[in-house]
Amino acid sequence: MFGACWENIRKCAPLIHSITNYVTVNDVANVLIACGARPIMADDVDEVEEVTSACMGLNINIGTLNRFTVPSMILAGKKSTALGHPVVLDPVGAGASTFRTNTAKKLLSEVKIDVVRGNISELKAIVSGAGKTKGVDVNVIDAVTESNISCGINFAKTAAAKLKAVVAITGETDFVADRSTCYVIRNGQPEMSKVTGTGCQLSGLIAACVAVNRDNMLEATAAAVAAMGLAGELGWDRMEAGDGNATYRNKIIDAIYCMDGAVLERGSRYELK
Amino acid sequence: MFGACWENIRKCAPLIHSITNYVTVNDVANVLIACGARPIMADDVDEVEEVTSACMGLNINIGTLNRFTVPSMILAGKKSTALGHPVVLDPVGAGASTFRTNTAKKLLSEVKIDVVRGNISELKAIVSGAGKTKGVDVNVIDAVTESNISCGINFAKTAAAKLKAVVAITGETDFVADRSTCYVIRNGQPEMSKVTGTGCQLSGLIAACVAVNRDNMLEATAAAVAAMGLAGELGWDRMEAGDGNATYRNKIIDAIYCMDGAVLERGSRYELK
Amino acid sequence: MFGACWENIRKCAPLIHSITNYVTVNDVANVLIACGARPIMADDVDEVEEVTSACMGLNINIGTLNRFTVPSMILAGKKSTALGHPVVLDPVGAGASTFRTNTAKKLLSEVKIDVVRGNISELKAIVSGAGKTKGVDVNVIDAVTESNISCGINFAKTAAAKLKAVVAITGETDFVADRSTCYVIRNGQPEMSKVTGTGCQLSGLIAACVAVNRDNMLEATAAAVAAMGLAGELGWDRMEAGDGNATYRNKIIDAIYCMDGAVLERGSRYELK
Repeated sequence: MFGACWENIRKCAPLIHSITNYVTVNDVANVLIACGARPIMADDVDEVEEVTSACMGLNINIGTLNRFTVPSMILAGKKSTALGHPVVLDPVGAGASTFRTNTAKKLLSEVKIDVVRGNISELKAIVSGAGKTKGVDVNVIDAVTESNISCGINFAKTAAAKLKAVVAITGETDFVADRSTCYVIRNGQPEMSKVTGTGCQLSGLIAACVAVNRDNMLEATAAAVAAMGLAGELGWDRMEAGDGNATYRNKIIDAIYCMDGAVLERGSRYELK
Repeated sequence: MFGACWENIRKCAPLIHSITNYVTVNDVANVLIACGARPIMADDVDEVEEVTSACMGLNINIGTLNRFTVPSMILAGKKSTALGHPVVLDPVGAGASTFRTNTAKKLLSEVKIDVVRGNISELKAIVSGAGKTKGVDVNVIDAVTESNISCGINFAKTAAAKLKAVVAITGETDFVADRSTCYVIRNGQPEMSKVTGTGCQLSGLIAACVAVNRDNMLEATAAAVAAMGLAGELGWDRMEAGDGNATYRNKIIDAIYCMDGAVLERGSRYELK
Repeated sequence: MFGACWENIRKCAPLIHSITNYVTVNDVANVLIACGARPIMADDVDEVEEVTSACMGLNINIGTLNRFTVPSMILAGKKSTALGHPVVLDPVGAGASTFRTNTAKKLLSEVKIDVVRGNISELKAIVSGAGKTKGVDVNVIDAVTESNISCGINFAKTAAAKLKAVVAITGETDFVADRSTCYVIRNGQPEMSKVTGTGCQLSGLIAACVAVNRDNMLEATAAAVAAMGLAGELGWDRMEAGDGNATYRNKIIDAIYCMDGAVLERGSRYELK
């Protein structure tokens, strides 16, 4: 029941701590408010543990990573785990630089990560070292399409088993899996890739959704993925002639703001595999 | 005469130096332009004194604080004071972490702060240590409503006396006070709290308004507070079905852009206590 | 043929590495996507060389400069040059602080810069030390208007010769020059100066356009300058009553998103001098 998971965010208004990149941070804050959560951003080692202690979930995003925030991510992650708060990792650009790949791996080894959300190339980079990320986008040779859905499902389950986490792989089709079950989600709009930060926003939404549905993180993650894709569809329906990706950015967040559980329940399209 | 204070910004086009968080910095820059000021952001110790010397006012905001910018804030603040430029402090998240509370207190002790703008919990944290901030939002137990207005007025005046600064406490009702006089301002729209950074934007507007009305900082601060609240009302009036907080964000800044002194004069709702 | 230069961006979808300020970085990312390029932002010394190696061009912007990113800019610049990737420098605020002026000069002496894009005051500061920048805007005494066009042309050519780079000086009239030829471009809308970051966005567009037109960087730079100015005109045409600079920001990026080579070819207004 995606709708029920989603409604829980507005009911609980969880405070979510994000340590994230400075490119898309404003959108992450606004989309968190849009879904009913409350954002706080803090990345200095002197305050991350205290800040995260007051929160219900932690969202770690390694875009525009720098040497000063890596220790903050580790500290905040460990504190969150100690307190039983879920931790989401968005390995932006893993595979694009050794620094990012290694930081993602370091986080996965030192912190109990509950959900990893990335594109297929990023996931391949951290699971097998085989993904060849092209910048922050998916590499064409890694792309999963309707013709090789079963590859996506199998990879997602294998990755989940290996990372001991729920894995959300987003792209044309989205896969949200633990070691045994995979949601194949078909919401979304191709033009979402033309807006910077839709992935970062989704990771924030996932953190909010799992924070208030701790007993069912797999479904909560799938609900957030479906919600973001549906917001992309609903936002696209409101586009007018002459509008482009800047306006679309706003309309996607607006759609999250207007989305209740019933809208998500009716609009989500997925199957369980 | 809020209108006259407001018009002075467009007449003087003051250059305003902001040392602010990376979450809402773009909106702060655009709202400063919208009101007729000119923004410059600089936070490295190697340039803050020189940059602030060329400006007419300084806006210090401790959101996403880090150890490298604290010394920059102190240096810029001291230089501004030496040059007679007004300094505004936005203690974002004071009370939410010891690092932020202590930094706010340090700034207040080492720099002559002319205006402090925050929510009631942040102000309580720095004045009495009693506020319990919930992230960056006000704590419910601290909230001032129409039923306890006199508490808000008294607290604002006491805080102003203690901090030796004009104090602007924003929330459902806004209080702008020095030790003897308090503007109780009733502009605003509840949904403004659904847009990240409206507080940060207001602190920028206050810096612009006091920079060009140095002889009357109390009224200038109140004018900026009323202007932001009125922009929230006017922007809300332009919302359409399906719009959410991302669109609202733009409409608030747009309303500042379109607001002249006459509009502010007609639209502001306040009483002096 | 500006149109052909412009179309090459969508054909090649170049990955562009930006080391840029945190004020306007989101808009730079979205405008790069809008024009058909793909953005990646990375500024830590541990990854800039590897990241830039996977890219086709580098965009260095010194707004909100700090001591940690200067070495990153140098490293990324040298690596780009070694690989034959074009490098664009946006000397935001050169002249406004010694730190920025010196960093711009350091970059120009240690890295092969292919294009420098700034306002007339910034260019004067780095070429002759004579410009007196007012914050990040042009100083009135430096302004080039239709009455002294030949001064602008001569200065642009002299600057290009001295800096051994294509020079793009943007303002009321835009000048794009190498040592012998100058495009005088008359696209644009005065209100573009009311949106923070239109200059930063343009520098990103230039990086994308020269990256895919390496054999003709002068024309490619001019095409990007004309495209940005035209986007300002087209975006302005879509403004409605009550809209302000926040909405205008979106409409400019939207116009880049919707602009194809034919639109640019028809809409650009320039002469060669």
